[in-house]
Amino acid sequence: MASTDPEYGTKPQPNPPTAGENKWKYLKVPLSSLDAGLRVLLFAACVTSVVVMVTSKQTIHQGPVSKEAKFNHSPALIYFVAALSVAGLYSIITTLASISIIMKPAFSSKFILHFAFWDVLIFGVVASATGTAGAVGYVGLKGNKHVPWQKVCNVFDKYCRHIAGSLAVSLFASVVLVLLIWLSAFTLHKKIPK
Amino acid sequence: MASTDPEYGTKPQPNPPTAGENKWKYLKVPLSSLDAGLRVLLFAACVTSVVVMVTSKQTIHQGPVSKEAKFNHSPALIYFVAALSVAGLYSIITTLASISIIMKPAFSSKFILHFAFWDVLIFGVVASATGTAGAVGYVGLKGNKHVPWQKVCNVFDKYCRHIAGSLAVSLFASVVLVLLIWLSAFTLHKKIPK
Repeated sequence: MASTDPEYGTKPQPNPPTAGENKWKYLKVPLSSLDAGLRVLLFAACVTSVVVMVTSKQTIHQGPVSKEAKFNHSPALIYFVAALSVAGLYSIITTLASISIIMKPAFSSKFILHFAFWDVLIFGVVASATGTAGAVGYVGLKGNKHVPWQKVCNVFDKYCRHIAGSLAVSLFASVVLVLLIWLSAFTLHKKIPK
Repeated sequence: MASTDPEYGTKPQPNPPTAGENKWKYLKVPLSSLDAGLRVLLFAACVTSVVVMVTSKQTIHQGPVSKEAKFNHSPALIYFVAALSVAGLYSIITTLASISIIMKPAFSSKFILHFAFWDVLIFGVVASATGTAGAVGYVGLKGNKHVPWQKVCNVFDKYCRHIAGSLAVSLFASVVLVLLIWLSAFTLHKKIPK
């Protein structure tokens, strides 16, 4: 579709743009592609985050006793996995929708409004899940002396490394979602005639 | 300002709207007022949440020993108070900006784009703070048998009630922020000519 405007890149602009629409016309295809690309990135981030969290199981043998640490020992981490899974599924659906916009740009403003609506909800879910898992991970790392909550990361080192890695990737997913919402708002704004 | 269009409410519509702009013209002032109203609501919610959290201090005397529970015993709750304070300050500034839009609607689309950008960031902060405090509050309420984290809410009842109330109000603030972002996206969308 990028071959439909051969002027892109050289920008000869024979007649200067008067309405706001013309000024931004050449950006149309790249912005849609950026949206689709960010959604693929979001999918990759969500899948990575969930896989790293689910594979965090660690068993430690201390003499005759063996202790096990799994992500589903904590309700906060279960919520985290559920939230990132939902975001991953959502990113598949919206990647397809975003590609359909590149194919048929006529419906783009309706689609982008719906993207903005749903992206905000998914962003809220991912941000709160990151906060939830981060809070439990921090207590696990540092403990809390005021209430007798002991730290666990000095014993379960691999488990905590997996949680930390998963949190970093989910933070990246949150940033991608913020960029997607910004992109939708900007795309809607640039369609308004000045 | 609502008195400038006396037709609002009766909708006689002498000539049917052809462009998309005319169709939504009568909604202009109510949408700006809705934005300002929601921002005032956000301010009230943030202040309530911070005040309820900060006043959660409880001291319990068990024989000769006295135990104290304060919000700043947990880093998660400190983050919560900081995040909601930032959101409260932000809501004051944007309420003023929103009122300035009602006064001078000429700059509205630029302002609304900036609102959408910043609202998303503040929403991320508030949502993650709610998740963070919720995770610590849940461990305090239920404990965790896998790691020896004991529950504290059976002892510090008033403390936990304050945290729960503060969390409920911050959840409400998150919903208000979602509505604000939706309103911005919708306002931008309805300015696009069909």
